Parts: sequence; C-alpha cells; structure tokens
Amino acid sequence: MILGRVIGTVWSTRKDEKLVGAKFLIVRQLNLDYSPKNSFVVAVDSVGAGVGEVVLYAQGSSARQTTLTKNKPVDAVIMAIVDKLDISVKDKEKEVAAE
Amino acid sequence: MILGRVIGTVWSTRKDEKLVGAKFLIVRQLNLDYSPKNSFVVAVDSVGAGVGEVVLYAQGSSARQTTLTKNKPVDAVIMAIVDKLDISVKDKEKEVAAE
Amino acid sequence: MILGRVIGTVWSTRKDEKLVGAKFLIVRQLNLDYSPKNSFVVAVDSVGAGVGEVVLYAQGSSARQTTLTKNKPVDAVIMAIVDKLDISVKDKEKEVAAE
Amino acid sequence: MILGRVIGTVWSTRKDEKLVGAKFLIVRQLNLDYSPKNSFVVAVDSVGAGVGEVVLYAQGSSARQTTLTKNKPVDAVIMAIVDKLDISVKDKEKEVAAE
Amino acid sequence: MILGRVIGTVWSTRKDEKLVGAKFLIVRQLNLDYSPKNSFVVAVDSVGAGVGEVVLYAQGSSARQTTLTKNKPVDAVIMAIVDKLDISVKDKEKEVAAE
Repeated sequence: MILGRVIGTVWSTRKDEKLVGAKFLIVRQLNLDYSPKNSFVVAVDSVGAGVGEVVLYAQGSSARQTTLTKNKPVDAVIMAIVDKLDISVKDKEKEVAAE
Repeated sequence: MILGRVIGTVWSTRKDEKLVGAKFLIVRQLNLDYSPKNSFVVAVDSVGAGVGEVVLYAQGSSARQTTLTKNKPVDAVIMAIVDKLDISVKDKEKEVAAE
Repeated sequence: MILGRVIGTVWSTRKDEKLVGAKFLIVRQLNLDYSPKNSFVVAVDSVGAGVGEVVLYAQGSSARQTTLTKNKPVDAVIMAIVDKLDISVKDKEKEVAAE
Repeated sequence: MILGRVIGTVWSTRKDEKLVGAKFLIVRQLNLDYSPKNSFVVAVDSVGAGVGEVVLYAQGSSARQTTLTKNKPVDAVIMAIVDKLDISVKDKEKEVAAE
Repeated sequence: MILGRVIGTVWSTRKDEKLVGAKFLIVRQLNLDYSPKNSFVVAVDSVGAGVGEVVLYAQGSSARQTTLTKNKPVDAVIMAIVDKLDISVKDKEKEVAAE
C-alpha cells in the first residue's frame, strides 16, 4: 500500500454506470515525514476519509476487494486512515503523528 | 485512476478478434493544473469521451470491469469524464474547472 | 495499451511447457512521433505482427485475454497493429501515418 | 519479489472491515548490498517479520495469495524473511549475510 | 516479459507455507546488448535456470500461471531461458548470442 494525503475531490457526472455514487478523491503520495511527493492518484474511498487526512491506498485488482469497489472499473482504493507512523531505523527511534 | 486528456485516436484494422469495434483513444497524463505530463497511454473508451476532454482512466485488470472491455486484452479504460477538480491543500482552496 | 515498434525476436528453446510454440517479439516503446523510447519489453504476438511494424501491446493479466495467451505465464501481448495515429492537441491537428 | 527492510509500522484504527487485525509494516526497498533505496511501501506481514529484518515482499494480486490476505484490499505482502544473499556476477563471488 | 540475467540466489528459511521448496533467484534487468541495468527482482524459477544465464521473466498475476507458482504469493517467475536475440532495427541487422 502507498502512503498519501487526500488533497481534493474529482467531480464527474458522466461515468461508467457501475460508478454512479462513487466518490473520487485526489490523493497525493507522501514521504515518511509527510512531505508531499510529486505523484498523485485518484482513488475511491472505502473508509470515510476526509480532505487533509493521511491514508493508505491499495492499487490494481486489490482495489476491488472492498464492498464498495467489487467488480468495478476502479484501480485505487483508500482502505485505511493513518493515525501515526512508528519508524525505527537502526538506532533511530522516531514516532510521527499524522497531522 | 489517472487524470488525463484525450488528444487523439489510433487507427487499427488488424487487431485481436475480441477488439473488433473497439475505439482506441490516446490519453496524455495531466498534472492537477491540467498541464500535460510526458507520458501517454492508449485506452478504450467506455463513456463516450471526445478529443480534448479531461478524463479518468483505470489500468490493469480493473480496465476489464466495464461492459465494453470484459474479457478483452485491454489494460486501460476511460471510465469517467471530469467536470472539475476541487483541490484543498492545507490553507489553499482552489477550484479548477476542466477546460 | 502502449505504443511500440517490433524490433526483433527472442530465441528460446528451454521455456515453460505452456509456452511451446509461442513467438516472443522485442518491442521498443515509441513516442507519439514514432521516435524510440529507451524502454522495451518482450511480448507474445496475437495478430501476426512483423519486425518493423508499429503495434499496441497490453500488459498484466490483460495480456492473457487472447486465445493464444490464455492461462499462460505471459505478461505482455501485441493485440493490434497500428495503421496511423490522429493527434489533435488544442489547435494543432496532426495525422501521423505508421512508417 | 522485491528486497526490503522493515523499518517501522503504521497505526490505523479506521480501516476497511476486512483489515481488522492486519498489521501494516513499512518496508524500505534495498539494494543488493543492503543499502536503502528511496522508495518504500506499506505491506501486510504473513511471516512474523520484525522491525529491522530483511524481507521479500510480493505485490499486486499475488499479495492476496496468503491465508492472511485472501480476498482483502491488500497489494503488498511480506512472504519471506531473508537469511542471506548469494551473489555471483561473472567472476565475482560474493556472499552477503542479512544484517 | 523482461530480459534479465540470473546473478544469484536468496536464502530464506522462514517463508510463507506455500513457498516451502521454492527457489528464489536474483535477476538483474538487462539492456538489449546484455549490459546490466540498475534494477533487479527476485523471481521463482520454473525452467531450471542457472546463475549467469540470460532469461525472460513474467510479472504480476502472470507469474502464477506455471505449475510451480499456481496460487502462491509470487509476483515474478522465470519462464524462458534465452538462446539469442535477433534485433533488426531499421537498416541495422544484428544478432546477439546470449553469453
């Protein structure tokens, strides 16, 4: 899964019939210190994530394994909201709360 | 899903038998301000997208989850036409209408 | 799908039993003006493509949706031969015949 | 599969219902000499990997082929803990024990 | 499929139960002149490839289409050993035997 932050939404009225009612969120990929990366994806939300929240998203066929996305033309789904990251690299111990 | 703009079509008479009648569109990937990225893909259209329109496309096995693309050798499908993007990063609130 | 040109073939006598008889083509990825990119893949051919021809190839599980590649350990398939590209970006109208 | 080192964990209370109880580990990708690459993923652990350990992870639909991850919205799974790498490139013979 | 050379093996005693007996090979990606690229993957071998040999590997769900890898958490499989490459780009005709 990839770490990202929800930064906005996509409005679409004309979409595949299976996607009526689906909410498309824009997710910017994050580094481990929550600084933004350049890349972003548009993902369907399965956990009630709001704009500004730090999330994990799954891609590919795994994005269709939630009740909301099953058998739909969706290749990215937000499947968790991040509370915090515990990073322990070698002798450094670091705890980073999601802003 | 990935944000892109339809910039043209691919003509092909010799193709896999399952693809007879399929329309191949050239989609250039976009940044959030609609400026073009360097990369492009060829996608099948499931929503009647026209040249110039801003769209979302899904990739991989998810591209086969529309009526048009089921069980076909297709790895990218346009599944939504974008009306606008609402981007709210930190204290900036921005609304970007699709050109 | 990705735009490419067939630039050669791979000879292999020792291969997975499901691949006996399969023809492996080397496909170099192309830009929209048919100039070559650096990356290439090896793909199975489902449409009788010859060396020098411009083609589309599909990747991942979608590469197994042709009669030739079904249930086989193949992750790239040539599923169309390109006649020409019609590219209309903004006010530029361009038609590019496949060489 | 990709070589990586577990460098931390992700805490998440709000997640897809299928993921209750799943443990998310942060895995940094490694070079063959165990030096870290820039990229990382978040993976579910199927083998009891601890922070600091060198592991292999599988991605995409293959990440759902363990008992723990079956039918779940998970696109990366740790499926092996690495004891050591035997690298023999041309005339160099090198054995690298996992730290 | 991707062109690579087997450059070593991964030793792992603790791995997913479905992977007992599987042999993990380190495969470095190659250019068309057999010079090494920077990237490598760890793949399961389905064709008896040895260290030093030039091979093709398939990725994603296609990597599970061999008898050895079916239903296993494996996302890369060696499915062919390369004898030689015939490369004919434009007016250049080149034959490159696998070293």
